[in-house]
Amino acid sequence: MNPSRPLPALLPAALAACLFAAPAVHAQTAAELAADQDTPGDVLTSGMGYGQQRFSPLRQIDTRTVSRLVPVWNMSTNNMLGDEAQPLVHEGVMYYTTGKSTYAINALTGRMLWKHELDYGPDIGRAALSGQVNRGPALLDGRLFRTTLDAHVIALDAKTGKELWKSKSADYTKGYSMSVAPLVANGILITGIGCGEHGGRGYLEGWDPATGRQLWRRYTVPAPGEAGSETWPATDAWTRGGGPAWLTGSYDPALDLVYWGVGNASPWNAQDRKGDNLYTASVLAMRPKTGELVWHYQFTPNDTFDYDGNNELVHADVTVDGKRRKVLMQANRNGYLYVLDRANGALLAANAFTKTTWADRIDLVTGRPVESAALKRMRETGEQITVAPSAFGGKNWNPMSFSPNTGLLYANVLDNEWDYKPAKQPYEAGAPFIAMEAKWRFDPKAGGTLKALDPVTGKAKWQHPWTIANFSGTLATAGDVVFTGTMEGEFLAFNAKNGEKLWSFQTGSGIVSQPITWEHGGRQYVTVASGIGTVYLYFAGDERLATIPPGGSLWTFALTP
Amino acid sequence: MNPSRPLPALLPAALAACLFAAPAVHAQTAAELAADQDTPGDVLTSGMGYGQQRFSPLRQIDTRTVSRLVPVWNMSTNNMLGDEAQPLVHEGVMYYTTGKSTYAINALTGRMLWKHELDYGPDIGRAALSGQVNRGPALLDGRLFRTTLDAHVIALDAKTGKELWKSKSADYTKGYSMSVAPLVANGILITGIGCGEHGGRGYLEGWDPATGRQLWRRYTVPAPGEAGSETWPATDAWTRGGGPAWLTGSYDPALDLVYWGVGNASPWNAQDRKGDNLYTASVLAMRPKTGELVWHYQFTPNDTFDYDGNNELVHADVTVDGKRRKVLMQANRNGYLYVLDRANGALLAANAFTKTTWADRIDLVTGRPVESAALKRMRETGEQITVAPSAFGGKNWNPMSFSPNTGLLYANVLDNEWDYKPAKQPYEAGAPFIAMEAKWRFDPKAGGTLKALDPVTGKAKWQHPWTIANFSGTLATAGDVVFTGTMEGEFLAFNAKNGEKLWSFQTGSGIVSQPITWEHGGRQYVTVASGIGTVYLYFAGDERLATIPPGGSLWTFALTP
Repeated sequence: MNPSRPLPALLPAALAACLFAAPAVHAQTAAELAADQDTPGDVLTSGMGYGQQRFSPLRQIDTRTVSRLVPVWNMSTNNMLGDEAQPLVHEGVMYYTTGKSTYAINALTGRMLWKHELDYGPDIGRAALSGQVNRGPALLDGRLFRTTLDAHVIALDAKTGKELWKSKSADYTKGYSMSVAPLVANGILITGIGCGEHGGRGYLEGWDPATGRQLWRRYTVPAPGEAGSETWPATDAWTRGGGPAWLTGSYDPALDLVYWGVGNASPWNAQDRKGDNLYTASVLAMRPKTGELVWHYQFTPNDTFDYDGNNELVHADVTVDGKRRKVLMQANRNGYLYVLDRANGALLAANAFTKTTWADRIDLVTGRPVESAALKRMRETGEQITVAPSAFGGKNWNPMSFSPNTGLLYANVLDNEWDYKPAKQPYEAGAPFIAMEAKWRFDPKAGGTLKALDPVTGKAKWQHPWTIANFSGTLATAGDVVFTGTMEGEFLAFNAKNGEKLWSFQTGSGIVSQPITWEHGGRQYVTVASGIGTVYLYFAGDERLATIPPGGSLWTFALTP
Repeated sequence: MNPSRPLPALLPAALAACLFAAPAVHAQTAAELAADQDTPGDVLTSGMGYGQQRFSPLRQIDTRTVSRLVPVWNMSTNNMLGDEAQPLVHEGVMYYTTGKSTYAINALTGRMLWKHELDYGPDIGRAALSGQVNRGPALLDGRLFRTTLDAHVIALDAKTGKELWKSKSADYTKGYSMSVAPLVANGILITGIGCGEHGGRGYLEGWDPATGRQLWRRYTVPAPGEAGSETWPATDAWTRGGGPAWLTGSYDPALDLVYWGVGNASPWNAQDRKGDNLYTASVLAMRPKTGELVWHYQFTPNDTFDYDGNNELVHADVTVDGKRRKVLMQANRNGYLYVLDRANGALLAANAFTKTTWADRIDLVTGRPVESAALKRMRETGEQITVAPSAFGGKNWNPMSFSPNTGLLYANVLDNEWDYKPAKQPYEAGAPFIAMEAKWRFDPKAGGTLKALDPVTGKAKWQHPWTIANFSGTLATAGDVVFTGTMEGEFLAFNAKNGEKLWSFQTGSGIVSQPITWEHGGRQYVTVASGIGTVYLYFAGDERLATIPPGGSLWTFALTP
C-alpha cells in the first residue's frame, strides 16, 4: 500500500466543534469591551479598543528588544482566499475567522480547540464578489459572533463552537454579502452589509446578541421623503444607490455614539445619479440602541471614483489650532486625512497624505472638496481623465494605528492613479454594476509607503518605501514599535519615532491583515495572519506576485527568553 | 469597493516559471551526488546521501544549543493534500515538490524563485488513489527531475523551472501513478511506479537524464518463463500481481548496485495467488545502467497483509557476530528490522521492533518468516484473525535515520493491529483491488513510539511515546540531535543518546515528511515541511485529527545569533 491515499473522504466527520481540553471561557462583559484598549491581557474588539487606535500599552517588546522576536507557533488557516481578519484573544484563547471557518485556538500553543465550518452554496463566488474573506469575530457574554459570505450573522458558543443562532440579513443571490467584524456597543450587536458593486442599497443593522433578533436597520441611502433624500434628485437611482458598510465602526461609550463608514454610491460612475448622494462616502454617528442618526459627514459628495468612506475610524485626543479636541480620524481612499470632532462631526482638518488630483483641497468652511479642473471637465463632457488616487485609494481599508506616545498615525499609503472614463451600463439585479472603464497605474518601483503621519497636517514625519503596494494594517505599541506586513510576506517592526527598520520575518504568504499584540503570564505576544489576497492581487496584474504563494496561516511571536 | 474581491481570475497568468533574481545554478555532477552525505552545504539526494542515513556531520546545532533553534522563514506550499517531500538544497537554492507544484526557493530567505505547476485531469483523484503527494525531486547537471500523479517523469531547468522534457511511464487511468523521488545513479535517472492497490504490474525504469528516453524497464513481477516466475504457480495472477516501487531506492557506488524496495502483491489477500510471489515485498539489488537484477531478498513471501517492502534502505557499517559488515537495513512494515549484507543479500539479522503476531520469528538460515499459528489457520480456513501489525505497518514509509556516532537507528514505530478477513473480489481494470475486509485498531493512548533501535537486536536503547500514531521521518546529526515531527504539528529535537526531549515548535499543520539539515555561510539550518496527510489521516478515523488543519508550508530553522 502506498500509504498516502486520500481515498474516499477526509476524516470521519465531526470536523465541527471538536473540543479538546479547552480552557475555561468566561463571559466578556460590556465593561471589559469598553476597557479593551487598556487591558492588554485580552484583545476583545476589532481595532484593539473601541477607539480603533490599534495601540497597546505593552512595552516588553521595544525598539531594543524586538531583535529577539521569534515565532512561537503557527496554525494553518486552511484558506487560499486571503486572510484579512483581526484575531481576538480572551483568557488564553484566540478566536479567528476566514471566509468559511471560525477557529478557537490555545493562544499559548497554537493548538486548535475547535473549529466551525460554514457551508456555502456553489454560487457563493458570485455572491461574494465582495471578497471571500472575513474581517474577524466579536465577543460578548461567552458568545462569539461573525458574519457570513451569504449575508447571515451567527453566534457560536465561545467554549465549544456550537452554533447558538443564525439570522439572515439579506439574499446573497442579489449581490449582498458580509465580511465585516461585528461591533458590540451598548449591548447591541451591529453589522453592516456589502453590496457596493451590485447596485444594492446599503444598511447597518442592530441585533440582540442573545437571540439574533433584528432590533433595527438603518439604510445608508434614504428613501424619498426621508432626511437626505434631497441629495438623490429625481430618478430611482437611490433604490440601487450603494452605500455599503463593510468595515467595522468605532464607538465612544461616553458619548454613546457609534461611528461607521459608508462606502461608494452605485454605480461607481456618477453621471446618472446627480446630487451629493447621502450617505454614501460618509461617516455616520449613530445611537447603538436604535440606529438613530445623530450626525454625519460626507467625505466625497457624488463620489464617482469608488473612494468610499469605509476606512478605519480612529479616536484620539488631538490638539488642533491650539485646542485639545476629541477627534475621529480617517485616512480616506480619496487621499485626504480627515480629522473630525467626534461629538458633532465638525471638520477640523483635512490634508492630502498622498498624490491627489481629483480635488485641489478640502474647504474647511464648507467641509466640501474643491474639485479639480480635470474632474469638473470629466463631469461635464464624460471624457476620459487621469486622476489620483484610483479606486485602490490613497490608502485601502487595511487599518492605520495611532500612538498617543508619538502623536502620529502609522498608515500604509498607496501611490497610484488611473485612467477613468464614464460608461453606460444597464442595471441588472445581482450583477456587478460599475458603469466605467479604467486602467490602473502603479509605479512598479514605488507602489506605496509606510508613513508616520501628523494627523493635523497630513505630513509624514518619516516614511519607508515599499516596492509593491502594501495592503497590511499596522500596530503601534508603547515600546515605540510599529508592526506591519507586506504583500510579499515579510512581517516587520519599525521604530515608531524615526522609521528605522528593526526586524523582519518571512511568513510564507502575503500579509494583508491586521496585527495585534497581547500579553499572558508576563510575556508579550504579537499575532498576525499571513495569506495573500486583496483587490491588488486580483486586479493590479502585478506579475511579481506570481511567486507569492496563497495558503494562509496564523502566526504568534514573542521574545526569546 | 470592498477591496478583496476575487472577481474573475487569480493573477494575470505567468504563474509558471517566473524568475526573480535567481542565484546562479551550476551543474550537479555525479561525483557531487556520491559525496552528498559528507558535504552538508548541499542536500542533493533523497535520504541525504546515497546510503539514506539521513545523518549530517553538522554540529552547530547540538544538544546544548538546540534550545536556541527558531524559525527563520516559512513558505506556504499552497497544498491541502499532504506535504511529504524531502527538499533538496544546492548552492543556496532549495527545491521542493508537492503533488502538483515544483518550487525553487531562495534557501536563506524563503522567497520563491520560480514555480512549475502540473495540470492534471479532473479524474486525477481516481488515478492517484496512490496518494496525491510527491516525495521530492532529484538533481543532475542543472536539471531537476520529478514524477507526476499521472505517471510521467519530467525534467525542469533548475535555473528557470522551464520544462525540458516529459516522458510518459504509464496510463494513469489504469490505476498507475507516481509519487517517488527519482534516484540518479551512475548517470541514469531511475523511477518506480505505484499500482499496488489497482492490480497493476509493478516496475522500475531507467531514463536518460538528458533526453527523457527510456533506457530500460524491469518488471517486479516476472512473466512466465522469466526468473522467479515459478513463484506464481498456475493462473494469470502475475498479470495483475502488484509489486509497486514507489519509494526511492539507495545506491552503493563502490558496488555499483541500486537497492529498491518492492511493495505488496495484488490483491492484498493472497488466497487466490499461491506461491512466494517474487519480487513482491522484497528488496532488489540492480545495476543502474541496465536494470539487471543481481540479487534479491524477499521480506514477506506470499504477503497477504500489505506489508510491502518499500520502506527506506539504510546503508551502514555494522558489527554482526563480531564482524564488521557493509549492511543494508530496513524496518519493514511487517514489524521486523532486517539487516542484510548489501554485497550479496545475505540475511544477517531480523528482529521484531514492535508487536508482531503474524510470524513467530524470521529464520536466519532459510531467511524466511516462521508464520504464526493464527496466520496458518487463516490461510487454511479463510477465517478472520486479529494480527499485528496491520497494513499501517510496524513502521510506515516515513524514513528512519542512522547515526554512526551512536550506532542507532531512529524510527517512528507504530503500535497497531487489525481484524482481517479474506474476501472475494473480481478484478476490474483501473479499480482498487484489495479482496479483504478489515478493521484497524490503534491504542488511542499509545499509537506509536520514537525508538532508538539497535540494528542487530531490534531492541530500543531509548524510546519516546506518542499519543497519536507518528508518520514523520527522522533526521540524525553529529550534534547528537534527532529531529522528527508529529501528526499534530510539533517539530521536535531529541538527544540522540538518551531520548531527552530538547526542543519543540508548533508548525501549523501535521508533519508527515522528512526533515533535512544543511549549512550555508557557517550557519546550520534545519528544514521540514508541515502539511497533514497520510493513510492514517484518511483511514484511521482518529477524531483528534479534526483539530489539525490541512494546508502545508515549508519551514527553515536556525539558531538565534
